[in-house]
Amino acid sequence: MALQVVKTPADMLKLSKQWTRDGKSIGFVPTMGALHAGHVSLIERARKENDAVAVSIYVNPTQFGPGEDFSKYPRTFDEDRKLCEAAGADAIFAPDTLYGKDPRIFVDVGELGDVLCGMSRPGHFRGVATVVTKLLSIVRPDRAYFGKKDAQQLLVIEQLVKDLDLGCEIVPCPIVREPDGLAMSSRNRYLSPSERKQALCLQKALKYCETKVAAGERDAMKLMGEMAEILQKEPDVEMDYIALVDAHTLVDLKRLRGNVLVAIAAKVGSTRLIDNTSFKNLS
Amino acid sequence: MALQVVKTPADMLKLSKQWTRDGKSIGFVPTMGALHAGHVSLIERARKENDAVAVSIYVNPTQFGPGEDFSKYPRTFDEDRKLCEAAGADAIFAPDTLYGKDPRIFVDVGELGDVLCGMSRPGHFRGVATVVTKLLSIVRPDRAYFGKKDAQQLLVIEQLVKDLDLGCEIVPCPIVREPDGLAMSSRNRYLSPSERKQALCLQKALKYCETKVAAGERDAMKLMGEMAEILQKEPDVEMDYIALVDAHTLVDLKRLRGNVLVAIAAKVGSTRLIDNTSFKNLS
Repeated sequence: MALQVVKTPADMLKLSKQWTRDGKSIGFVPTMGALHAGHVSLIERARKENDAVAVSIYVNPTQFGPGEDFSKYPRTFDEDRKLCEAAGADAIFAPDTLYGKDPRIFVDVGELGDVLCGMSRPGHFRGVATVVTKLLSIVRPDRAYFGKKDAQQLLVIEQLVKDLDLGCEIVPCPIVREPDGLAMSSRNRYLSPSERKQALCLQKALKYCETKVAAGERDAMKLMGEMAEILQKEPDVEMDYIALVDAHTLVDLKRLRGNVLVAIAAKVGSTRLIDNTSFKNLS
Repeated sequence: MALQVVKTPADMLKLSKQWTRDGKSIGFVPTMGALHAGHVSLIERARKENDAVAVSIYVNPTQFGPGEDFSKYPRTFDEDRKLCEAAGADAIFAPDTLYGKDPRIFVDVGELGDVLCGMSRPGHFRGVATVVTKLLSIVRPDRAYFGKKDAQQLLVIEQLVKDLDLGCEIVPCPIVREPDGLAMSSRNRYLSPSERKQALCLQKALKYCETKVAAGERDAMKLMGEMAEILQKEPDVEMDYIALVDAHTLVDLKRLRGNVLVAIAAKVGSTRLIDNTSFKNLS
């Protein structure tokens, strides 16, 4: 079946209902376009696990704050389309907009949206949760695929689907990295060659943390301080946060214990990057 | 087909997908049970307009405030079931609960939830919008039927479906009244015989307003004052509000113009009742 490009929510809902009528399970990969190998891995996994696969490409304005990169966010539809086709998608949902003239109702993510990335990006997760609710309502997938790179986003969406009974399985997928370890991101293309090298410090700090934790270190403040030093060595890197938190509640930990998320956000030049690692059942 | 009673969101979603696979359109009537002729009219209309009809019966805790009548709200499942069957429903969705242990994500209705009933019931419309989002996600109807008696609720839900792309048509249905004019409500059964008589003043005030508007009156304060006098004549009636507002924004009007909602809420004894009327294209 040729790849379809669907432009309106009504047409996408119609296609989804047709797939359901045909007895097909539906896999869904929501993206903002500017697709890279991370996205491709999600589409390929969706392809393996479902009868029909939809990819959405929509740069969602409500998850960008004032002064963020909404207008300059990369739009590369023609390349995205080829990648979707090669990865086996059946449909691209690429609406011009998902918002009416005067939207008044949003999804409130509560305290989950106030910590980590939410500290420096107020309203970001409200925008994410709202657009994901819309997309899941329109596409009505059996499974939706999200990368673990956006760890807080993944947590918010898992909670969202549970709390609003959105009726699909959220499938978390591994971070895909460049050969030198940099986590794939649509924003990596903003980096100058010098910034690109410096950006490796995020992964370096996380690797350092993994080594220390494997050796028995549990003191969060000590780890945070040492990771911060690694970032501070790079002249164009400005740390936003290093967080060692409970992987479910995102509450700061003094000592690492149980399921732990270690997340970093930093500006490399003017480009904000994130990366993370996690530990299970630490004692 | 015999009436099915479905107890879990997973089973209801399964049934809804089965209906869709069978090519059936789905009509949905969400209720809190304690069904009366108003609800029955919604079910009968859904029956006429759809291939499959689901009625939900769930007293939603998040739309009740502290001190409100959640615990004493009438639960009359056996009678409700008979009424659903007689009206031609295919399924009753009657979950024990729709909330997990620690819900963290809700639907925020913004300023629409702060006026009229929202003034004396803070959080009420947030609870309504959240549960309706859940129910629509689980039942996935083509059409959902709501009575106009809950005018603000209807407006919130119309906006909700638009703003979150919930993909169903909201069908507003006329208020059903007792022979003497009292709007049907599950809460009417709380009224003592004397309160029952006094409760007619809501309808009397609205009728008065209709007569005056037909005669050309447009001064909202004047109408409000005269309607309040009608309520004040009853010893056990305590006015909550009389609102003459824009039917779309719910903003107070000084002069009636365009589409106008006139809504009343009052306590009759300890029972809170609402009623309303509306005007189109007033000039």
